[in-house]
Amino acid sequence: MTTTQLPGATMQGFVIAEKDKAEWRTLPVPAVNPYGALVRTVVVSPCTTDVHLLQTGSASIPWLVGKPIGHEMVGIVEQVGELVREFKPGDRVVVSACQPDFRSLEAQAGQPKLHNTSQYWVDDPDRGGSVVDYYYLLDADMNLAHIPDSVTDEQALMIPDMAATAFEGVRELGIGYGDTVAVLGVGPVGLMGVRAAVLHGAGRVFAIGSRPVSFQVATAYGATDTIDYHEGDFVAEILERNGGPVDAVLVAGGTTASITDALRLVRRGGTVANVAAFFADETTVLDNVAWGYGYGEKTIKAVECSGGRWFLEKLLALVEHGRLDPAPLITHRFHGKDHTAEALQLFLDHDRTLLKPAVYFD
Amino acid sequence: MTTTQLPGATMQGFVIAEKDKAEWRTLPVPAVNPYGALVRTVVVSPCTTDVHLLQTGSASIPWLVGKPIGHEMVGIVEQVGELVREFKPGDRVVVSACQPDFRSLEAQAGQPKLHNTSQYWVDDPDRGGSVVDYYYLLDADMNLAHIPDSVTDEQALMIPDMAATAFEGVRELGIGYGDTVAVLGVGPVGLMGVRAAVLHGAGRVFAIGSRPVSFQVATAYGATDTIDYHEGDFVAEILERNGGPVDAVLVAGGTTASITDALRLVRRGGTVANVAAFFADETTVLDNVAWGYGYGEKTIKAVECSGGRWFLEKLLALVEHGRLDPAPLITHRFHGKDHTAEALQLFLDHDRTLLKPAVYFD
Amino acid sequence: MTTTQLPGATMQGFVIAEKDKAEWRTLPVPAVNPYGALVRTVVVSPCTTDVHLLQTGSASIPWLVGKPIGHEMVGIVEQVGELVREFKPGDRVVVSACQPDFRSLEAQAGQPKLHNTSQYWVDDPDRGGSVVDYYYLLDADMNLAHIPDSVTDEQALMIPDMAATAFEGVRELGIGYGDTVAVLGVGPVGLMGVRAAVLHGAGRVFAIGSRPVSFQVATAYGATDTIDYHEGDFVAEILERNGGPVDAVLVAGGTTASITDALRLVRRGGTVANVAAFFADETTVLDNVAWGYGYGEKTIKAVECSGGRWFLEKLLALVEHGRLDPAPLITHRFHGKDHTAEALQLFLDHDRTLLKPAVYFD
Amino acid sequence: MTTTQLPGATMQGFVIAEKDKAEWRTLPVPAVNPYGALVRTVVVSPCTTDVHLLQTGSASIPWLVGKPIGHEMVGIVEQVGELVREFKPGDRVVVSACQPDFRSLEAQAGQPKLHNTSQYWVDDPDRGGSVVDYYYLLDADMNLAHIPDSVTDEQALMIPDMAATAFEGVRELGIGYGDTVAVLGVGPVGLMGVRAAVLHGAGRVFAIGSRPVSFQVATAYGATDTIDYHEGDFVAEILERNGGPVDAVLVAGGTTASITDALRLVRRGGTVANVAAFFADETTVLDNVAWGYGYGEKTIKAVECSGGRWFLEKLLALVEHGRLDPAPLITHRFHGKDHTAEALQLFLDHDRTLLKPAVYFD
Repeated sequence: MTTTQLPGATMQGFVIAEKDKAEWRTLPVPAVNPYGALVRTVVVSPCTTDVHLLQTGSASIPWLVGKPIGHEMVGIVEQVGELVREFKPGDRVVVSACQPDFRSLEAQAGQPKLHNTSQYWVDDPDRGGSVVDYYYLLDADMNLAHIPDSVTDEQALMIPDMAATAFEGVRELGIGYGDTVAVLGVGPVGLMGVRAAVLHGAGRVFAIGSRPVSFQVATAYGATDTIDYHEGDFVAEILERNGGPVDAVLVAGGTTASITDALRLVRRGGTVANVAAFFADETTVLDNVAWGYGYGEKTIKAVECSGGRWFLEKLLALVEHGRLDPAPLITHRFHGKDHTAEALQLFLDHDRTLLKPAVYFD
Repeated sequence: MTTTQLPGATMQGFVIAEKDKAEWRTLPVPAVNPYGALVRTVVVSPCTTDVHLLQTGSASIPWLVGKPIGHEMVGIVEQVGELVREFKPGDRVVVSACQPDFRSLEAQAGQPKLHNTSQYWVDDPDRGGSVVDYYYLLDADMNLAHIPDSVTDEQALMIPDMAATAFEGVRELGIGYGDTVAVLGVGPVGLMGVRAAVLHGAGRVFAIGSRPVSFQVATAYGATDTIDYHEGDFVAEILERNGGPVDAVLVAGGTTASITDALRLVRRGGTVANVAAFFADETTVLDNVAWGYGYGEKTIKAVECSGGRWFLEKLLALVEHGRLDPAPLITHRFHGKDHTAEALQLFLDHDRTLLKPAVYFD
Repeated sequence: MTTTQLPGATMQGFVIAEKDKAEWRTLPVPAVNPYGALVRTVVVSPCTTDVHLLQTGSASIPWLVGKPIGHEMVGIVEQVGELVREFKPGDRVVVSACQPDFRSLEAQAGQPKLHNTSQYWVDDPDRGGSVVDYYYLLDADMNLAHIPDSVTDEQALMIPDMAATAFEGVRELGIGYGDTVAVLGVGPVGLMGVRAAVLHGAGRVFAIGSRPVSFQVATAYGATDTIDYHEGDFVAEILERNGGPVDAVLVAGGTTASITDALRLVRRGGTVANVAAFFADETTVLDNVAWGYGYGEKTIKAVECSGGRWFLEKLLALVEHGRLDPAPLITHRFHGKDHTAEALQLFLDHDRTLLKPAVYFD
Repeated sequence: MTTTQLPGATMQGFVIAEKDKAEWRTLPVPAVNPYGALVRTVVVSPCTTDVHLLQTGSASIPWLVGKPIGHEMVGIVEQVGELVREFKPGDRVVVSACQPDFRSLEAQAGQPKLHNTSQYWVDDPDRGGSVVDYYYLLDADMNLAHIPDSVTDEQALMIPDMAATAFEGVRELGIGYGDTVAVLGVGPVGLMGVRAAVLHGAGRVFAIGSRPVSFQVATAYGATDTIDYHEGDFVAEILERNGGPVDAVLVAGGTTASITDALRLVRRGGTVANVAAFFADETTVLDNVAWGYGYGEKTIKAVECSGGRWFLEKLLALVEHGRLDPAPLITHRFHGKDHTAEALQLFLDHDRTLLKPAVYFD
């Protein structure tokens, strides 16, 4: 196939150099395949996952070394392959964090995210994370999304991971009108989960966390009760306030022990959906009283972020039409890509005022 | 079985006397079966269905003659049967409009509304509509609902038919996050449909009607576009504004022709749910171009109001927790049950400022 | 309410006397409430659950002492309450093992089995297990089922627990046409699971067990592969034969470790449904590699037997119309209720030729 | 992109010459795009749709003139594009009749068949029907399916349209274990519908048709009742035999009036799925008594054939594992492609012994 080359063939990327160390390096600008695109980065949002990869990357995932970090970005299309139909240079876009290959049997089976090509950087020297001047993706028509005029860059920036993960998880809960929902962990994903629950008909919504900034946004998003898990037994507190167990629980943080907490919170016949990744433990231990000894009618789902143009544009439609405003998630702003390390430091410092940082490249 | 009798064994009821004529009559207060209850009426809301029954009742449904009208009411429990567990005299309750017999195979099959005992007045001289001093129902634990303290009588009054019909219909649409929805007919049920769509994740919502009072409430409930069907071809207008067909359509008014309108509006793969009753026509004619000649991947659902304590209390939870405020539906208020005829006259006069009237008995 | 009394007011029941000891005792024949019935026992099938209760009953569930064992039976209606509509003396019936109270909020919510009154013997001196001359149940119309003429007593005997548990579990798997399914544990419930999978469109079906009698029936029911777990690593064997993981797993035996086995067997995006009860362990430990560290897209369901007339008659329709023949499950037959202890002894002896015994009362 | 050319660049195809006339013509062998393939035809099955196109093609669909007929075929891969991963020359394959573009928003939304590229021949001079020596398709990995060794060519030949249409339609019925199903029209698609219903748990299955050959196969596939619609009112007959309405109806033939027949047959709360195409009528008229005046709780679905490798291989798995044997559908065999016209003539003659013909090319 023919490919084209960006005039000026190098760029800067913020790459994992070694354990606990990232640095700006000069990288080649990838050539674009006929279905692909290059997106000029406007704003990125570093994430706990980036910090995690930085801390463990050189050890547990060796091929990550030398790769740029990042998976949340908004930009302007710079170049598209010759077979791209729906995007053109100059379009303002958000890039899907989960990038399914829709030409896969998993997609045919209705589960495209199971064939997520964003996991396969290892095989592709041209690809990596989003903290680069020009981000390259394989299939523009499938994994970019147009941003409606009325949606800001910062709103769009929260869509591909924070919103996509939470809305996917909440969708799996199957909430019915008026159901009571608990969200365990109200970092940025959990906060989106609060909003997703309200937009799926939840009545009472418990937000469990510990930080004032989270509780403030949770309340703005529609949480009816905010519960500080530092203040005693939050499971008992919720069961008492609610007069019994809740209908559904989204787990968006904590540890493997949170699954048993969720099982204690949820009624028989209810669902627990987990969207957190628990790499610290080799096992997840379910308490059999909470789980019902195997026949307690409690469903446990383990949900991954979804992606693709269609899903992202549906979420952006929620922003466009006033149902969802992700802007309050961005608590810290940096102007100039050189500040990326400062943004990451906020996570390392466990800054209690941080939800998400935005780093503007210019 | 033993039964008890209310001291002072007569009451007043507003009954269908003949075609186009209703009048207050003295009726016996029914004796309560062990599972039943008497509810003292506080406030009722006459309805287009009442007008329809009045206009056709004596001709097409002879057994309705002599029966009180009405199916939307809020009241105070006056008396309960000896086997009632969850309600006691003095409780403030809303009465289910659709009263399923949950001891039925239909209920076992997950479709309790298909065995709706509120349709069987004909067999029971003790039962009738809700515009009576003491309303009698067969199964209090199953078909009454407690009203949360923070919910007003007027809010609760809109739950058993206006909200229950619309939320049931919208639930059948299977709306996904960000979907575009059209609501055809924004009388009080359609307006509840607008809100139900927003609370099921709809993005853009088109409200099709003709009256300013409807458009005002529709906008408050989250409609993004209000379309007056008197101003030209509303189907073409929506297709143009939306850049193509919508994902789902709720039909909440009009005529059998509205089904074809809805099929023109909805995309292939989408769903039309009808909650209107079309008694004027013997057939419903689908345009085959709109329907896709039988394989166009458009689903048509014909949905009836649901009921029962569980469903009503779920809807009341939406009010309690601030997701839904039905109060704006009540545009006219009357104090004193003698004003019931005036309330009905508003429908006969096609009062363009009317959504729903509330008639307080005292 | 009025009640009636059976002439000759005592009967025999096989009751738990103390740990590891059951004996025949003379019991009063219960009086029938207006919705209830007495069913004269024709044939029963003791079960591992009975053995389990006998072994632990006096210690862990004190109120079981003095109660008759048993929950699977076929009989003839002897007497019905005055409000029973659908059953009359002389009707041949199967009794639901799970007896939901359909007048419950759980039933209204579509999950009647969550309000299973067969769990509440503790509160009712008149009620107990089915190994009695006259079995009393509270609601005949809801929890008896008519047996079609072409269905034998032995076929019907396997419906209320063996079939109802397995078909309910398999229904929760959401099998699609052509899916590959593994059934972990092919005792009588697992064997019914094999058939349920075939009747839900499964293609390849792996039956994991160890006994020739099980494998013979599994093959007759449509299993394509029988795997003996004593012969090496059955998970590896299945993954190799299948060329990868399966679409769905029914766990119908084993220990809590079987859940991790099932997670190893199932593909991402697939479902594990457990219908076994794991009382031996206080926890269930999930291997995080198998589970995907919380976001592996594998769903775990913990499913209880369902019941009620509608469900049982649907399963009986499968027998009537030739889809399902439960008769091969009965491997041992006894004539005379005095042989009940012998039937139980087969379980205690771990008889490798036993699937289920039938004990005819006469 | 680079393409390759088959040595010997012409082939024969059976093309629509004008209204009611098809003829063999010499055509260029298309060049293969990087994702495409050429499949050498082994056996085809002409179809009523081919006859319909031949009869109306030149008038109503002008661009069909000059195109080969056919959409059901089995063959051997002759050539694949350079980016095809899963198929290679020599592979025995079945070609999907519905060929979705899985790189489409419709596919992302879970409804790939809505972007069926087999409908877009008009835009592509290289593409046409399957009655050609070398069939060209755009995306081999997505729309070919491997045939298991144990599955014959004739069995596989019935998969892409007869089975795919019927199983898709029945899947949409949502049949539960033990449900009663009626199949209206038991031509080859309806017969597959009978089998699909049995493999989705149906109990009683009514097959409505008129020809002995159909009834013979219907019974072999598991129909419990065969009903000849020439012998009086088949709706009344079924309602009487069944003691009431059925749970679900598949419409696989007839006219638009069949939809009302189906509505008369189906219970409230049940579903009618139509898989027939009704081009003869401009409208479909629903009887409002049968439909319930708009709120009768009866769902009408209009279902199109589905396709793609994953779905076809799932259906082939049913054949491989002995659940489904499509072979009895083939009642007439021809050896030599020159006999294609004779095969078509069987349809024109309304041969009452015909289900489907197979035409072997050699």
